[in-house]
Amino acid sequence: MKALEVDNAQNIRTAFFISDGTAITAETLGRAILSQFASVPFETRVLPYVDNLERAEDAVVQINTAYQRDGLLPLVFDTIVSPEIREKINSAHSCNLDMYEGLIGRVAEETGVEPDGHSGHAHDNVDSETYKERIDAVHFALDNDDGARTRHYHAADIILIGVSRSGKTPTSLYLALQFGIRAANYPLTEEDLNDNQLPKALREHKHKLFGLIIDTDRLVKIRQERRAGSRYSSYQQCQQEQRAIQGIYTSQGIPSLDVSEMSVEEIATRILQMTGLKRRIG
Amino acid sequence: MKALEVDNAQNIRTAFFISDGTAITAETLGRAILSQFASVPFETRVLPYVDNLERAEDAVVQINTAYQRDGLLPLVFDTIVSPEIREKINSAHSCNLDMYEGLIGRVAEETGVEPDGHSGHAHDNVDSETYKERIDAVHFALDNDDGARTRHYHAADIILIGVSRSGKTPTSLYLALQFGIRAANYPLTEEDLNDNQLPKALREHKHKLFGLIIDTDRLVKIRQERRAGSRYSSYQQCQQEQRAIQGIYTSQGIPSLDVSEMSVEEIATRILQMTGLKRRIG
Repeated sequence: MKALEVDNAQNIRTAFFISDGTAITAETLGRAILSQFASVPFETRVLPYVDNLERAEDAVVQINTAYQRDGLLPLVFDTIVSPEIREKINSAHSCNLDMYEGLIGRVAEETGVEPDGHSGHAHDNVDSETYKERIDAVHFALDNDDGARTRHYHAADIILIGVSRSGKTPTSLYLALQFGIRAANYPLTEEDLNDNQLPKALREHKHKLFGLIIDTDRLVKIRQERRAGSRYSSYQQCQQEQRAIQGIYTSQGIPSLDVSEMSVEEIATRILQMTGLKRRIG
Repeated sequence: MKALEVDNAQNIRTAFFISDGTAITAETLGRAILSQFASVPFETRVLPYVDNLERAEDAVVQINTAYQRDGLLPLVFDTIVSPEIREKINSAHSCNLDMYEGLIGRVAEETGVEPDGHSGHAHDNVDSETYKERIDAVHFALDNDDGARTRHYHAADIILIGVSRSGKTPTSLYLALQFGIRAANYPLTEEDLNDNQLPKALREHKHKLFGLIIDTDRLVKIRQERRAGSRYSSYQQCQQEQRAIQGIYTSQGIPSLDVSEMSVEEIATRILQMTGLKRRIG
């Protein structure tokens, strides 16, 4: 039995995410599907911009090479629109998992409209409102990161608060890039927490505040990577800050979320769900 | 004929993106598919975290309400794993476009392994290397944005250069959040450009440089939104800077990309493709 396990462990299977565009769609859905098969050792390859027959031929060579090496049919997740390019990709020795064809066909049937046949997403170029909202939101997040400035809070959609290293900055940037939301963030320091009330700069924007919570063990771990052995990263200090900040959230009625186990994507989407905040793009 | 067109124009169809997790996968693929039907006026709704029967029932009510209002079957794109919840969602009056079931079934068949049945992605929590790489990359991008500091360039994976407002900052942040890549960025100013050579801080990192190009009309437009009527946003100034910077890219052999028509996602993925830079996460 042991020998068989070892043997299984070596059977790596290659999965390709192939697209005529960025391959973000193919990769996102493909990885979600692979995550349902945690016991299978996958090696993944992303092939974006396969938008002509020459690149498709190159992809076919890569797929066939993986097949020969693995001895297992590679999984090919693709979102290619052009029938010629798709046919070429399908000629490889693979288990082909077309993500578009079936779904596009069903939408065409239901709507009675033929698909346009263009590649990838509609361009989100610099002339579009979407592009502008997004870039403005990114610059807003940068300018208003880490409590650097508080005078633009009237223009913020949301102000994230939390102790140092609780995930405010990446969440603010993700909200900006993905949803065009203008997110400021403000770290509550030890002095703020000792006062047991909101700093003056935050008081008049109380309705925009959203609190992040992170459990003490994780906070200690993150802070120790930054400043090992310091008071800042000590268990006692982290615990005290956590307790104090949760007291403020409760007494001030500020909505909050325990982000200890969450990815940045999950924090951002949970915040939208909890606050009802509307995305400006997407 | 005119009357019919007007009538068609009013027939909005609602599309739902439903998931037991963030709904990012359902939304990404769903929007890509809808973009193939540009003539159909869709109204979209994202319903994340539909992870119990109560929330599923609420989703069903929303779908049925949309059906009654539109007079057209709503499109329901879902990535729900639980059979009970999926069955509930399927009970609504809708055109159901399940993204997972078919593909997961085919992968199970090909690998001979049963799917795990958990919801959404594996957690990318603060204990994981992925989380750490990502957060470190975000902080690196922030600390090294806009030429603020140059002393950490030895630790950069890539240094984006370009004129002011050519898209360096959002691209750096996207590379960090999506791929864990440490991207610094440095704006070449008029003085740098007049010298017709690279600033000293960049010279020793020439192999890490990547240049962004943006066409003059677009640059003028973007800069005018920032400082209308200024020399900075004048056509002549923008054109001069563009010509000078492209001269530097060419004479120094720096790879570059015209990003005028590109979304941030496309810029980032094209850069990976052109440079061969390896992502640190994903």
